[in-house]
Amino acid sequence: MSRLMLIVFPNLAEKHSDRIREAAEKHGFQVLFFQKASQALPYTGDAEVILGGNPVLSQNAPNLQWFTSRFAGTDPFMAPDAFANPSAVLTSSSGAYGLTISEHVVMVILEILRRQHEYWQHLQKREWVRRLPVRSIYGSRITLLGTGDIGQYTVQRLRGFEPAQMVGVNRGGKNPGSMFDRVLKSENLDQILPETDILIISLPGTEATFHIVSEKQLKLLPDDAVVINVGRGSVVDQNALEKELRSGRLYAGLDVFEEEPVPPESSLWDCPRLIITPHVSGDLTLPYTVEKIVTQFLENLERYCAGEPLLRVVDRKAGY
Amino acid sequence: MSRLMLIVFPNLAEKHSDRIREAAEKHGFQVLFFQKASQALPYTGDAEVILGGNPVLSQNAPNLQWFTSRFAGTDPFMAPDAFANPSAVLTSSSGAYGLTISEHVVMVILEILRRQHEYWQHLQKREWVRRLPVRSIYGSRITLLGTGDIGQYTVQRLRGFEPAQMVGVNRGGKNPGSMFDRVLKSENLDQILPETDILIISLPGTEATFHIVSEKQLKLLPDDAVVINVGRGSVVDQNALEKELRSGRLYAGLDVFEEEPVPPESSLWDCPRLIITPHVSGDLTLPYTVEKIVTQFLENLERYCAGEPLLRVVDRKAGY
Repeated sequence: MSRLMLIVFPNLAEKHSDRIREAAEKHGFQVLFFQKASQALPYTGDAEVILGGNPVLSQNAPNLQWFTSRFAGTDPFMAPDAFANPSAVLTSSSGAYGLTISEHVVMVILEILRRQHEYWQHLQKREWVRRLPVRSIYGSRITLLGTGDIGQYTVQRLRGFEPAQMVGVNRGGKNPGSMFDRVLKSENLDQILPETDILIISLPGTEATFHIVSEKQLKLLPDDAVVINVGRGSVVDQNALEKELRSGRLYAGLDVFEEEPVPPESSLWDCPRLIITPHVSGDLTLPYTVEKIVTQFLENLERYCAGEPLLRVVDRKAGY
Repeated sequence: MSRLMLIVFPNLAEKHSDRIREAAEKHGFQVLFFQKASQALPYTGDAEVILGGNPVLSQNAPNLQWFTSRFAGTDPFMAPDAFANPSAVLTSSSGAYGLTISEHVVMVILEILRRQHEYWQHLQKREWVRRLPVRSIYGSRITLLGTGDIGQYTVQRLRGFEPAQMVGVNRGGKNPGSMFDRVLKSENLDQILPETDILIISLPGTEATFHIVSEKQLKLLPDDAVVINVGRGSVVDQNALEKELRSGRLYAGLDVFEEEPVPPESSLWDCPRLIITPHVSGDLTLPYTVEKIVTQFLENLERYCAGEPLLRVVDRKAGY
C-alpha cells in the first residue's frame, strides 16, 4: 500500500500539479487532487499528508502526519478538535502572501490619502469635482503592527515613497533584517501611537492579539490617522473604530472584519472615511502566490521525507 | 515708483505669502496677492513679475519681464498672443509635481492590476464578491514615456515593487541619474511597446508630442497592457484607445483628456477597463507641492534680481 497525499487547491495550474505529483511519487506517494474539501473527504481516512485550507480535512484524517494550510493565517485550525490525530504537524503558507498583501496595503493607503473613494462617488455621477485636499506618504510616520512577511514586504515597497519613519511593533522587539527604522515590543505599542499617521496591522488572529487595537489605542492616534487592517478582524475593536470614523477623526482601510462576509445590514457599509475590501488583499489568484505556496510545500516535502524539521510549523496553542 | 509683483495663487498659506513678501520687498518689489486672475487684471499693466497660472495675465502685461507658471505644463502659454511683451521670460514649476503625480500613478496602476474598480461596483451593492484574478507590479515590464521629474519620482517609487524592468523613453536617449534600467530615444518607442506591460505617459502637450501614442502604438502593446496618462490628453489618440478598451484588449488609467472636463455625454464615462480621474494627479492641494512651487519661485527671484539665468525656462516655441 502506497502512502497517500491529498492536494485540495482550487484552480491549480497544470504545471503546479505536475511538479507536486513528480516530487511526491519519487517518495512513494500516490497524489490525489481536488477542487474542494468536500470532494476530498472520502479519502482523508488513509491520508498521510494533506495540502489544503479547510479543517474539516484534518478533523477526518486519523492517520494524518502533516497538514499544510495554503493560507498564511491558520486560526481555523486552532479549535481543539481540528485534528483527528493530535500529534499531526501543522505548517502554514506564511511567506507566500506578503507580496500581494503589501501591494494591497500601498494601494489602499494611497486611495485614502488621495481621497479616491470620494472622487469615485463624484465621477460615478459624471461630476468633474477637483481640489479635494490630498495627503502624501512622503513625510508620514508609519507604524507596522506585525513585522513578519507582510510587514517586511510592505516596508520594502513604502521605502521609495520617503516616509518620515517606519517603526515595527512585535512581541520580541527584534528588527528582522534591519528593515524597519526601529522595532518596539508590543507592550510599548501605546507609546508610538500618538506619533503614527498610518497604522498597518498584519497580526494573526489569536487569543493574544484579540482587540489589541481597542478604544484606548485608537484614541491615542492623532486626528486623521489612517488604520489599515490586513491581518485578522479580531485584532481591532470594530465598534470602537467605527465610532472614530463616524466622528470624523480617523480613516480606515479594512480587508478583514469581525464577521465575514460583512452582512448586508451592517452599518459599516455606509460608514464614512472607510474603504472596505472583501478579504482579497492576499488573494490566491495572483500566480506568484500560488507558485510560492507550491514551492514552499515541496521544500517542506523534502524535509519531511528526510526526517528533518519542517519550516513554518504552527504552534497550535499560540496560534501562529 | 516701486517695482510691482503679482502673485495669483488660490489658498496660499500665510507662511508662503509671508516668505514671498519678505524676499520680494528686499529687492524693492511691492507684492499684491490674488485668488483669481480676474482679480489681478486691473494691476497687470505695471507688473514686472507675475506668479500665476492663467495666460490672460501675461496677455495684459505689456511691461512684464518674467512670468512663472505655477503649473508644470505650460501649454496654455504657447499661443502666439500669450504675451503682450514678446521678450518676457516664461518659467514653469516643473519639479514641484513629480512627488504627488508619482503617488497617483502607483495608486492607479495597483487599482487596475487588482481590479479595484470592479470590486467597488460590487461593494457598492453590498455584494461580497471575491476571486477576481489579480496581477502584480512584481515582474511587470514598465515603460516610462517621459523621463523628467514625474518619470524619475515614479521610478523611485516603483523600484521597491520589483518590476522586471523600467525602461525610459525620451528625445535624446539620456538616462537621468542612471535611474532607469535603460533609456531609448523617442524614435525607438515602437520597439519597446511589444515588451511593455505598463506604459506610463508623462509628456507635455506640444506639437511634437501630439498623438505620439496613436492607433499603431496601442496595437503594438501586448494583450491586457495598462496605459497610464498623467501628461497631457493630446499625447494619446483617445478614440483609438477607447476602441482597445472596449474590445477588451487593453486597460487604462487617464487623468488627462483631449477635452477637459470630460463632457457628461462622453462615451468614456461607461467605457470598460478604464479608470478616470479628473486631472487631479498633480493636485496643488498637496502642501508639499505648494511649498516646492514657492521655494523654486524664490530661488529664481534671487537669480532674476542678480541678473543670472533663470531655472526651468520654457522654450516658447518647443513648448517645454
